[in-house]
Amino acid sequence: MRLTRYFLPVLKETPAEAQIVSHRYMLRAGLIKQAAVGIYSWLPLGLKVLRNIERIVDEEQQKAGHIPLLMPTLQSADLWRESGRYEAYGEEMLRIKDRHGRDLLYGPTNEEMITDIFRSYISSYRDLPKTLYHIQWKFRDEMRPRFGVMRGREFLMKDGYNFDVDRESALEAYDRHMVSYLRTYERMGLKAIPMRADSGPIGGENTHEFLVLADTGESEVFYDSAILDLELSDRVVNYEDPNQLKQIVSEWTTPYARTDETHDAALFDAVPEERRRSSRGIEVGQIFYFGTKYSKALGATVTNAEGQRVPVEMGSHGIGVSRLVGAIIEASHDEKGIIWPEGVTPFHVGIVNLRQGDAETDAACAGIYAGLQALGLDPLYDDRNERAGAKFATMDLIGLPWRITVGPKGLKNGVVELVSRRTGESEELPPEQAVEKIARIYAYL
Amino acid sequence: MRLTRYFLPVLKETPAEAQIVSHRYMLRAGLIKQAAVGIYSWLPLGLKVLRNIERIVDEEQQKAGHIPLLMPTLQSADLWRESGRYEAYGEEMLRIKDRHGRDLLYGPTNEEMITDIFRSYISSYRDLPKTLYHIQWKFRDEMRPRFGVMRGREFLMKDGYNFDVDRESALEAYDRHMVSYLRTYERMGLKAIPMRADSGPIGGENTHEFLVLADTGESEVFYDSAILDLELSDRVVNYEDPNQLKQIVSEWTTPYARTDETHDAALFDAVPEERRRSSRGIEVGQIFYFGTKYSKALGATVTNAEGQRVPVEMGSHGIGVSRLVGAIIEASHDEKGIIWPEGVTPFHVGIVNLRQGDAETDAACAGIYAGLQALGLDPLYDDRNERAGAKFATMDLIGLPWRITVGPKGLKNGVVELVSRRTGESEELPPEQAVEKIARIYAYL
Repeated sequence: MRLTRYFLPVLKETPAEAQIVSHRYMLRAGLIKQAAVGIYSWLPLGLKVLRNIERIVDEEQQKAGHIPLLMPTLQSADLWRESGRYEAYGEEMLRIKDRHGRDLLYGPTNEEMITDIFRSYISSYRDLPKTLYHIQWKFRDEMRPRFGVMRGREFLMKDGYNFDVDRESALEAYDRHMVSYLRTYERMGLKAIPMRADSGPIGGENTHEFLVLADTGESEVFYDSAILDLELSDRVVNYEDPNQLKQIVSEWTTPYARTDETHDAALFDAVPEERRRSSRGIEVGQIFYFGTKYSKALGATVTNAEGQRVPVEMGSHGIGVSRLVGAIIEASHDEKGIIWPEGVTPFHVGIVNLRQGDAETDAACAGIYAGLQALGLDPLYDDRNERAGAKFATMDLIGLPWRITVGPKGLKNGVVELVSRRTGESEELPPEQAVEKIARIYAYL
Repeated sequence: MRLTRYFLPVLKETPAEAQIVSHRYMLRAGLIKQAAVGIYSWLPLGLKVLRNIERIVDEEQQKAGHIPLLMPTLQSADLWRESGRYEAYGEEMLRIKDRHGRDLLYGPTNEEMITDIFRSYISSYRDLPKTLYHIQWKFRDEMRPRFGVMRGREFLMKDGYNFDVDRESALEAYDRHMVSYLRTYERMGLKAIPMRADSGPIGGENTHEFLVLADTGESEVFYDSAILDLELSDRVVNYEDPNQLKQIVSEWTTPYARTDETHDAALFDAVPEERRRSSRGIEVGQIFYFGTKYSKALGATVTNAEGQRVPVEMGSHGIGVSRLVGAIIEASHDEKGIIWPEGVTPFHVGIVNLRQGDAETDAACAGIYAGLQALGLDPLYDDRNERAGAKFATMDLIGLPWRITVGPKGLKNGVVELVSRRTGESEELPPEQAVEKIARIYAYL
């Protein structure tokens, strides 16, 4: 994309209403614009990041054997009356009356609707296990929306639901979700730590939240620093091997890691002192095995191998897709702007032309641009008539991980400059080699 | 995908509430499930088609140089009060009050919001032309929702808006949209005819609807059959060449083609009698140049080359993405079920195993399945323990354009059967050749 043809409204001033860095940078770098309190438009650059995150989530769910569908944003109140949550949910549920006076609501979550879909079609253990998920806009009418997309009202979320004939199989689904989530966050360049969560009135130990460490996090977290060294990296995961999944889950859940809600000081004290850490964390996902809470309420039963009808075992598993855009920025920025991890960056590389209008420099930039596109890469070419400083400031603010700087001086020596946004390291090399190097970097993702 | 692992709830009975064939087949083939009146869940197979259509729309818009962003589903009422449409819109607008009593609405369209985005950031002709679009869920509270997704309440739509400094440039945007829409429908295997539409109180000649011919269409249409022979096919379109665009638009708008709203009997009578046709049509898109209606109301101005501030010239352009799923079925089906065009089919090919459990037949199917996947194709393998008749009926109902049938008898001769869903023609050939043939068919798309 050539910047002069794009729509990238970068702001010079820091908007006064933004209290945290991700919100400030998302407004300044032209990622979002507020449409109403807690409701945002995703401007072109922001939408690209959002779609990248969505794609990673989607691909990793499908690798785990989970099946995508799409439930609507609006739901009938009837199902929620059946489960008993219509009255219980409180003011966060956005209640709506249509022209005929029928009660609708903007779905804040989908346990009821997915259970209704399940019970409408599936009645035998032979069709299990099944995990169905969707990635859809939700609405929670927060009392005080703030922090931009981190605590917005209309937000994009992946929520998935497993259906299993018994507890053992449902716990395999739990493990499968945990591993697929670890992979998902890792691909985004995020360290998200699974922490034992509070299961509330339902009880049970099988719920974990995934937290990204950041000073602005809403939760206080306590953990054994050993967990930071864990990586799936290029480990081959077989999602059909429950033993391998269990082993990975055990690896990630053995080191102490809890939020203030489940913190146990005595257990924490047992962690060697030099590895004891406390900090703040942002929740970016949760997995939850809750058994038969909804299947009993809504009558979703299956016949098991013994011919008995039993309520189906379920869990629900969520990833905050739009929230992740903010969380990634909280975890990866500096005083100049955002630093996108390669996995989610809106453009793979920026091209800065230091002398726009100079025939040779323009031609070199056009060649690099075309060369990158020919390799399937998506560059952003700053072809504005601006001085170098302004172009660098824009690139730093919007946070593309790599920048190729092209100027007459370098070209005289047959080189351009390749700069890493994260480290600031730069090297000079011929244009073709710069293109090849960028291609190699992204080939590994 | 192996069918035993998928979620494809095919119904044997025809649901009584479905009055038209697309609605019947969408329910029977497990594409959708009604969640509330006029509101549907997209089951896995339906979602795949929806996403294919969305992807084609998105790609063709980007080829035309249009820029994607994403506006939220809910909007503040304030902007609509500014344009004067809040009261005028009537009962089709779903009005909502949040917990603080603020007026929201579920966006039925986005002229106001996009104009607000534009006026917030752009103020010079130097940043024009710009066309911004999104593909987002909308809601219109239809009095009597019916015909499934064809006249639903919550629906997915692409809506795009051009911003130009003067009328001439805005009319170029109009032409660009018409050509990109022709390409879009053609890629979906659809013949969608641009017909002069009624511009309502705004007036002007520059609005066309795109109609797909089908007996169940809501509009009566009159046309010169010569228009059916027009094809873009593999013509190279340069979206930056206004003359080429104008020439293509002229080609498609010269033959008579109008809906009952704009029908002119005298002009129609001038068409040679043997080419005069009347039938029914389904509207699947509309383009509309409306000038300064919204920019004046909302104060969206730019300085032109002479330094004067002028209201920006606009048009809006829509494609009914979810409606297209129904429209394609209306245009392409037989008494056994759906017949998907290759461009939108949920799976490229079905594999039917005639003797599930037979080691050799299973191995042959597995080999074909893996071979197709290795070529980047997405097959559906019916690996159920069902008799051949039931498997064929399912494949015919869900409408995959190609089927590979694998049985012990054929394998003895080293062949499988490749069948076209559309023509019913079949040929016997070795498994590797069947795989190659399927790959060749899709390579051309």
